[in-house]
Amino acid sequence: MAENGHYSLMIHGGAGMLESLKDPKTASRYRQSIHRILEHGREVLESGGSALQTVATCATLLEDDPLFNAGRGSVLNELGKVEMDAAIMDGRDLSAGAVAAVQNIANPIQLAHQVMSKSEHVMLIAEGALRFADQCGIEQTPDNYFYTPERIAQLEQARLNDKIVLDHDETDSEDEAQKYGTIGAVARDLTGNLAAATSTGGMVNKSMGRVGDSPIVGAGVYADNETCAVSATGYGEDFMRTLIGKTISDLMLMKTLDGVQATAAGIDYFKRKVQGRGGVIVVDKNGQCSRGLTTKKLIHGWIEKSAESMVGFD
Amino acid sequence: MAENGHYSLMIHGGAGMLESLKDPKTASRYRQSIHRILEHGREVLESGGSALQTVATCATLLEDDPLFNAGRGSVLNELGKVEMDAAIMDGRDLSAGAVAAVQNIANPIQLAHQVMSKSEHVMLIAEGALRFADQCGIEQTPDNYFYTPERIAQLEQARLNDKIVLDHDETDSEDEAQKYGTIGAVARDLTGNLAAATSTGGMVNKSMGRVGDSPIVGAGVYADNETCAVSATGYGEDFMRTLIGKTISDLMLMKTLDGVQATAAGIDYFKRKVQGRGGVIVVDKNGQCSRGLTTKKLIHGWIEKSAESMVGFD
Repeated sequence: MAENGHYSLMIHGGAGMLESLKDPKTASRYRQSIHRILEHGREVLESGGSALQTVATCATLLEDDPLFNAGRGSVLNELGKVEMDAAIMDGRDLSAGAVAAVQNIANPIQLAHQVMSKSEHVMLIAEGALRFADQCGIEQTPDNYFYTPERIAQLEQARLNDKIVLDHDETDSEDEAQKYGTIGAVARDLTGNLAAATSTGGMVNKSMGRVGDSPIVGAGVYADNETCAVSATGYGEDFMRTLIGKTISDLMLMKTLDGVQATAAGIDYFKRKVQGRGGVIVVDKNGQCSRGLTTKKLIHGWIEKSAESMVGFD
Repeated sequence: MAENGHYSLMIHGGAGMLESLKDPKTASRYRQSIHRILEHGREVLESGGSALQTVATCATLLEDDPLFNAGRGSVLNELGKVEMDAAIMDGRDLSAGAVAAVQNIANPIQLAHQVMSKSEHVMLIAEGALRFADQCGIEQTPDNYFYTPERIAQLEQARLNDKIVLDHDETDSEDEAQKYGTIGAVARDLTGNLAAATSTGGMVNKSMGRVGDSPIVGAGVYADNETCAVSATGYGEDFMRTLIGKTISDLMLMKTLDGVQATAAGIDYFKRKVQGRGGVIVVDKNGQCSRGLTTKKLIHGWIEKSAESMVGFD
C-alpha cells in the first residue's frame, strides 16, 4: 500500500532551449517562475486540494507565463497562427480530456478539463472544440494576447532556417531544440491520488493542423493511481510512436518497477525504438519523483514528499 | 526467432451491430464482403507484398464498401456531416500516419499513409489535413458519394433516440452498439513484418470535432515487429483511456506472453480499468491470429499462417 500524509509535485517548461539557458538572466527568470508555480501548487496540495486540481492550477500558471511555449507564450505555426494542444488526466479513474489545434483560448488546459468533466468525449479538436468552449462559457481571447514580439521574430527566424535545415544535425541543433517547448505538471495528493496535465503551442512554423503528443493520452500525458503520472516534452512524433507515458506506466504494472526504475527503462525504450528526442517528468504512486531526458536540457522543478521545492535544468 | 514463409491477415468491420446481423441477408452480405477482401489481401501477400501494403489495400476496400462505417459508408455527425478518422502504422520502424476530422476524402487511410510517408508528422487534422491532401494531389470527393439514404435515416433515428437514450442501459442497447462501426486490418507478411490500419466515420450524431481512438497510435491502431499488430473497434473513449493496442504489445514485450495470451490479458485489463466496450483483432510476430471482445458481436475474418480464409461474427 502507498503511504499517505505527504504530497509530491513536478512541473516542466520544455526540453532543449540550450541557447536561452546560456543567458544568466533568462535562466534566472525560468528558475523564479518554476519556483513560484511549485509554491502555488504546494498551497493547493497542503490545503487538501486534489492532484487533479493541482496540475490544472500549475498548468494554467505555466500557460499564463509568456516564458513558456503554451497558452500565452505559444509559438506560431506556418501561417503565423497560434494553434494549441492540451490534455489532462485523472489517475483515479483514467478519465481524460484533450483539445487540439485550438485558437484564441487563453488556457487550453482548462478547456481540456471541461472536455473531461462536461462532455462524454476524451478529445475535441479545432472548430468543434471552440464550439464546445462556447457552450461552456469560455470566452475567446483576442490574437494580440498571444502575438508577442519574441514569437514573431522566432517564426521569421524559423522560416529563414527552413532553407538550410537539411545541413544541420537536428539533434544537436540548438534552434531545433528551441522548438520543443511544452509545459506540464504531475502530482500526487495527500490521499495518494495522481493526475497529469500537458499543454503546448507546438513547434515553431509547424504545419497547420499538426497535432503532437501533448494532447494524446498515453503519449504526452498519462496518470493511473495504480502506477504513476507522466508528462512529456520533446519531439512530439517520437512520443506518439512509442507512447512513453503508457510505457512507463506499463513498466511499473507489468515489471513491478518503481517510478525511478520505470522512468530509466522507459527512456531506454524511447532511445532504442525511435532514437527519441525529449524528456519526461514522473511522480509515482508512492510520491517518488523522477525525470528522464535524451536532450541536453529539461527545465523542471519538483517537490518530493512535501519537501522543499527544487529546480533543475538537466 | 519468428519463422518465415507464411503470412497472416485479419480484418474487422466493427463491433456491436446485433440488429443488422439478425437479418440473414445482411449477415450474408457482411460475410461475402469480409471473405472477398481477405482474398484480395491474400493476393498482395502471396505476391510478396508488404504487411503495410496489405493493410492499406484491405482498409481501402473496406472504406469503399458502404456496408461499413468508414470512407463511403461513414455515419453522419450532429451537423449531418461526414467527419472521418484513420491511421496506419508500420511495425518495422514504428512509423505512423493519422488523420482526424477530415471531410470529402474517399479513402482517409490513403491520406494517413501519405502523412506517414510524405510529411514529418504523425497526425494532421481537419483543414490542415485537407491542405496536405491537396499538396499530395488527393482530390476531394463530393458529398453525395457519402450521403446514402441509410445513413440519413440512421441520423434521424439517432436524433430521435437522443431524447430517450437516458432510459436505456447503454451496453445492452442495440442502437448504441450499432454506432460503434469501424474498419481495420492487421497483417504479417512473408518476411515477418507487421502493420496495422484503422479507419472510421465515428459515432452517429457525434459532436463536431470529436476524435475517437481510430487515429490514435496505441489506442485504435498499433504495430511493432517485436510484438504484434492491433486494430480496435468500439467505444473510442474507452480505448483512448486504456491504450489497448499498446497494452497488448507491452504485455507481449514485458510479460513475454504470446499474442493470444496478450489479447486475453489486454481485454481483462480493458474491462477491469474502464468497463470497456468493444473488440480487437491481433496478429502476433509469429503469425498467430486472435481476437478479443466485450461486446456481443465483432464482425471479422482471418487467414492464419496462409490457411483458408475464415469469417466470424463473435
